[in-house]
Amino acid sequence: MRKIGIDLGGTNIAAGIVDENGAILHKDSIPTGASRPKEEIIDDIAALCRALASEAGLSLSDIDSVGIAVPGGVDEKRGEILFTPNIPFSGLNICEILSEKLDDIHVSVTNDANAATLAEVLAGAAKGADNAVMITLGTGVGGGIVVDKKIYSGSNGLAAEIGHFVLQMGGEQCGCGRRGCFEAYASATALVRMTKEELNTCFMSGEATVMAEMRADSARTAFDAFRAGDKAAARVIERYTDALANGIASLINIFQPDVFIIGGGVSGERQFLIDLLQPKVDAEDFARGAKKRTRLCTATCGNDAGIIGAALNGGERR
Amino acid sequence: MRKIGIDLGGTNIAAGIVDENGAILHKDSIPTGASRPKEEIIDDIAALCRALASEAGLSLSDIDSVGIAVPGGVDEKRGEILFTPNIPFSGLNICEILSEKLDDIHVSVTNDANAATLAEVLAGAAKGADNAVMITLGTGVGGGIVVDKKIYSGSNGLAAEIGHFVLQMGGEQCGCGRRGCFEAYASATALVRMTKEELNTCFMSGEATVMAEMRADSARTAFDAFRAGDKAAARVIERYTDALANGIASLINIFQPDVFIIGGGVSGERQFLIDLLQPKVDAEDFARGAKKRTRLCTATCGNDAGIIGAALNGGERR
Repeated sequence: MRKIGIDLGGTNIAAGIVDENGAILHKDSIPTGASRPKEEIIDDIAALCRALASEAGLSLSDIDSVGIAVPGGVDEKRGEILFTPNIPFSGLNICEILSEKLDDIHVSVTNDANAATLAEVLAGAAKGADNAVMITLGTGVGGGIVVDKKIYSGSNGLAAEIGHFVLQMGGEQCGCGRRGCFEAYASATALVRMTKEELNTCFMSGEATVMAEMRADSARTAFDAFRAGDKAAARVIERYTDALANGIASLINIFQPDVFIIGGGVSGERQFLIDLLQPKVDAEDFARGAKKRTRLCTATCGNDAGIIGAALNGGERR
Repeated sequence: MRKIGIDLGGTNIAAGIVDENGAILHKDSIPTGASRPKEEIIDDIAALCRALASEAGLSLSDIDSVGIAVPGGVDEKRGEILFTPNIPFSGLNICEILSEKLDDIHVSVTNDANAATLAEVLAGAAKGADNAVMITLGTGVGGGIVVDKKIYSGSNGLAAEIGHFVLQMGGEQCGCGRRGCFEAYASATALVRMTKEELNTCFMSGEATVMAEMRADSARTAFDAFRAGDKAAARVIERYTDALANGIASLINIFQPDVFIIGGGVSGERQFLIDLLQPKVDAEDFARGAKKRTRLCTATCGNDAGIIGAALNGGERR
């Protein structure tokens, strides 16, 4: 089986030919040129699909389906993009249009975070799981929900806005307009904020910290300094992982998924992060006494997750 | 189609014959006698099923399936009760045992809150919905999740512990051991606590309130006094509905279900409660600008929800 997965980003459009196991056989990418008219971008996507097939020594008729992952809200059943803030595709029935340009091949569409979650379940860290929840810790907190090996996108395609449940009523201002969202405590941005706050406290009290010599605007600083034995960094990591584990335990209490996956930049800390979180999650998981418990892990599909998930979602439009 | 639904409670066992639309054709109940050996209780359940059929002028062979709802954790796929704190059925494969006693009829089991949610989706407030989330506001906060018209119970049967996501890190102590759970702010118990706190504040400051003449231990007091124009009660209701709406908006942001159902004692306030919550939820729903939004409503199946949900879940063991 050969499927094409397309990861439509604000900067680049990456696409790959994916087999039934989620392995990428061939991939390529082009700039999005998001400020151009939508017709041009769509033509480029169609050309990219044909080029991919050709580069792999295949013709379009050898491809079973095309799946596209977009950064925005999607009505998967209708094949329609509801909104994409950074690409002029809002309101577009991308499936119909792209199918017409590609010899009527079956085209499906999903949200990019949903696609990434599906990729982890079918070909990555959660391979074999039926149910999984993923959070991506980056500029914000995104995520996806997979139930019975299928993407759950709710009644309107906008489910799994998993960064936007409140962890602290009246707490930190969140970009979504609410106060105290999980995103405002668990994103890489939040970790950087906590790092800067701690640096400021050290500066005021005269406490020495190796973080003062490091990049204050990096989410890696506190982790690296903590590993070097820095006490101020230890306080940052304690505060950050307390909030992160608290939110993860909340989501586990709601879903009790087979696997809970952490992706995004901060997940680069891999097992070191999991080892910090696990005891905190254990203490707060309602099912901590159950025989079967949720496995906590970091993502493994990396930047290919969107391509893989879009492709494997492609066989079935829901 | 005729199915039997059994709602196994710590005090009573209620059962009914249910048709394919979720209408109860005949019902009956017996005391649980939960301190007795489990064999006696099981024999009573089997006898209740036979009696129900007989009272309705049917024989057991006219019944298509039996479903049982229990207050505790359940492995639906295996048909096993994982734990029931108040009934000696923990570790019991209730489906196998009851099926043997009832001429090998198909028996399924689920958690009672899950059953109630399914009842609302198939025959109650959320009829016609594919996806729904329900919370029950009583002594605690229970709940259920329905995806594609089927109960979602997670990897271990313990999902939808929807009272136990944290709304306030480090906040009110919750019965589950965590601090700041939704349950500690949204349950009827929490509303009573807020009522008493406000009464105390009024007592200290000398402010008059009609609540002083009413039952302080009732979740209705603040609502009734608020409707009578009492200012102290208005503060209680504001505080309670702020927290409740905050938690509901969080769950909507995660699930974007077709319908969000409020059940349990506090839901007796019906449209009055919805009218207080809707603008607060609107302000915090991530999808507030979407064409299709989650409908917020109160439950309609009442005390029969367990029977109806257990019966309609009965056709298919998942």
